[in-house]
Amino acid sequence: MALDALRDLFGPRFSTGASERALHGRSESHFPEIPPDAVIWPETTGEVAQILRHCSAARIPVIGWGTGTSLEGHALAPRGGVCVDFSRMNRILHVAPEDMLAVVQPGVTREALNTELRATGLFFPVDPGANASLGGMAATRASGTTAVRYGTMRANVLALEVVLADGRIIRTGSQAPKSSTGYDLTALFVGSEGTLGLITELTLRLQGQPEAISAGLCAFPDMASAVETVITTIQSGIPMARIEFIDAANVRAFNAWAKAGMTETPHLMVEFHGSPAGVREQSQAFGEIVAAMGGGAFQWSEATEDRNRLWKMRHEGYYAARALWPDAFPITTDICVPISRLAEAVEETAREIAEAGIPGPILGHVGDGNFHALLLPARDRPEEIAKAKALAASMAERALRCGGTVSGEHGIGMGKLGYMEAEHGAGWEVMGTLKTALDPLGIMNPGKLVRQG
Amino acid sequence: MALDALRDLFGPRFSTGASERALHGRSESHFPEIPPDAVIWPETTGEVAQILRHCSAARIPVIGWGTGTSLEGHALAPRGGVCVDFSRMNRILHVAPEDMLAVVQPGVTREALNTELRATGLFFPVDPGANASLGGMAATRASGTTAVRYGTMRANVLALEVVLADGRIIRTGSQAPKSSTGYDLTALFVGSEGTLGLITELTLRLQGQPEAISAGLCAFPDMASAVETVITTIQSGIPMARIEFIDAANVRAFNAWAKAGMTETPHLMVEFHGSPAGVREQSQAFGEIVAAMGGGAFQWSEATEDRNRLWKMRHEGYYAARALWPDAFPITTDICVPISRLAEAVEETAREIAEAGIPGPILGHVGDGNFHALLLPARDRPEEIAKAKALAASMAERALRCGGTVSGEHGIGMGKLGYMEAEHGAGWEVMGTLKTALDPLGIMNPGKLVRQG
Repeated sequence: MALDALRDLFGPRFSTGASERALHGRSESHFPEIPPDAVIWPETTGEVAQILRHCSAARIPVIGWGTGTSLEGHALAPRGGVCVDFSRMNRILHVAPEDMLAVVQPGVTREALNTELRATGLFFPVDPGANASLGGMAATRASGTTAVRYGTMRANVLALEVVLADGRIIRTGSQAPKSSTGYDLTALFVGSEGTLGLITELTLRLQGQPEAISAGLCAFPDMASAVETVITTIQSGIPMARIEFIDAANVRAFNAWAKAGMTETPHLMVEFHGSPAGVREQSQAFGEIVAAMGGGAFQWSEATEDRNRLWKMRHEGYYAARALWPDAFPITTDICVPISRLAEAVEETAREIAEAGIPGPILGHVGDGNFHALLLPARDRPEEIAKAKALAASMAERALRCGGTVSGEHGIGMGKLGYMEAEHGAGWEVMGTLKTALDPLGIMNPGKLVRQG
Repeated sequence: MALDALRDLFGPRFSTGASERALHGRSESHFPEIPPDAVIWPETTGEVAQILRHCSAARIPVIGWGTGTSLEGHALAPRGGVCVDFSRMNRILHVAPEDMLAVVQPGVTREALNTELRATGLFFPVDPGANASLGGMAATRASGTTAVRYGTMRANVLALEVVLADGRIIRTGSQAPKSSTGYDLTALFVGSEGTLGLITELTLRLQGQPEAISAGLCAFPDMASAVETVITTIQSGIPMARIEFIDAANVRAFNAWAKAGMTETPHLMVEFHGSPAGVREQSQAFGEIVAAMGGGAFQWSEATEDRNRLWKMRHEGYYAARALWPDAFPITTDICVPISRLAEAVEETAREIAEAGIPGPILGHVGDGNFHALLLPARDRPEEIAKAKALAASMAERALRCGGTVSGEHGIGMGKLGYMEAEHGAGWEVMGTLKTALDPLGIMNPGKLVRQG
């Protein structure tokens, strides 16, 4: 038995215990528990290669695990197999301030990296909210609130070490800022959700901590004026570091959760990075757009405490909404459209949610055209759950109709598989061809992202 | 005969004439003429698909052609076949100012696009110097002087239409600013040099024309102080739009070519984009670094004429050097290293060139760690040519030793094929696997970039 061989190799770092299996069969979203057959905690790239050679020989599925915060069932085990938990590969291997890069193992979390970087004057900008592992963030091409300024994981991963299905270890990219030497394997593995290989090391681009940061909040009389403010701001070229939309239902949740004391209308939360003069110039220019669009006073601050309070609240949006609707069965959504279609997409979504009579607070990284409705049907009402699923499907169709994408940042996993053909057409076949080329036995995270021949 | 069938289909837009074949068998660099068997000028994606279906059936090589300005022999025809010249697919299909994107056919040149965009307040930032076609720029992952601020083609292509070897037409990406729906096929085709498919449409990210631009020039007593200025500037986070290094030999060429009247020592040419206050702040901060490093007065201007004169001269660097050494056999080079190794890499290169006694002016996009030596051995001295080739090889090895890449922006083509294994190791095998998966018959630009099984 291949599992026995792995048990012999990894000893106490191999488990088939029910509680470990259950823990690694859960996600933070609405999927049922689907546990793997075993969990292994490797400590080196060589050990990951050993696992893959064994699993290839025995045709056992292999699923990577970071912190379990993905939202589309990426790390569930619908075909059983071995879950490779990277939590013991959590070393920051090298920080090169002069090259503005860091080399890390995949189990390092973004907060751990940023804590380590504090003294260097640099930071890693991608911020999906959850304190996810950097390996998981690369595997799902994560983004979040700061992507409007610094890009997604696509832009911030410079190089990778990857173990392929057959146990071969490859390196992609280099430490140079750019290259034109052949196929962009780094970009191919970023976002591949563990279906082509397991990431065992990442070289990440870092950013200089801005000299000055200002952040603030402003209320709008309605959704349309808030969204129009976003569109005008982006088009005017003000270099926003963050620009987040929060609807009235979310504000209600924040008021209950964090005693935010906000007026219960749509809001924007924004942040500016730059020189002291620069952020003031940007804040004023933004304030003028807000006023022209009929928004309330734009209150901003350069104080770190104020800013931390603001973004902590924003990042807890999911928990705030869960707390306000404790009996709900939460269904996350995540669509992204061209900015020119944002107002239409948000407004149609809000109208449909209102018509369905289900709580569905909307928030999003609207500077990128990306927003989420958190659909909250009652857990004990199957007809509400069915309605919520229909709303999610309608959002995905709306994204495609608007020239956008069914997943701005949450990825495909199991949850969005049904939309891949509609979004990519023959391109999805090509993804299947690439998958089969690199994983002919289909052992890498099967049942996710791609359909294999 | 498959060629006869194509002749019947394309009539006057098909040629086997000697002059057309010769024209499409040449490049701007040192490769000998290697003509294709025929040239076709398609006008639609459907016609490109027809060509590929025919060529697949008859196993005829297919080579894409933009403007012929690539430097590593990308478009030569070492195995004969059909050259697909995209010059008649040169329409700008759609400009969406509110989404800051443009949809173009591959034969549109970057200057034609920017001329069209003038009235919109937007521009396409990637600037490799040559007035290349946008399809060719995507296929080679081009960059140039502005990549330090706006990124390479990797960052500026949002979506593609591609015709595969078997004639299937796929679309990659969407018009949304970001997506996490599956493998990044856009990134896979950008930089694939026509070996995986032919690009028939591109959706490009545009940038807002900066409110203010300042540009300037400063002299340094030696190479070390110029390069240290670059490193300090990048690390200080000043958002340079361009920062170019020019050595003393290049200055001599510019003085002869453009009556530049510069002191014959190393120089930096820089540009800043931003608000009027922002560019002044940046120019001053840069001037202070220059002074601290012992550089001469930093002269900068916000006048368009001054700036255009500066960058026209820079872009003509190749021709200026050719004019100063008219009897040379020019060999271009292109390495890119981490910024921390830039001083070492440039100085070692300069020393080796001086020791070889061959003209070899150095210039480069040093903000990205990328530089070129234009090696100019005498055309009629084979021993000098051999020495120059040895210098180029030594530069490539130096790039790898410094953790960099053998091609920052010129690509692989035929010229750098010999370094792919050294740079990518088993990753190069993976590229071969992907190539075989998408082009099992090996008809797409054979003999370039990848080794096929």
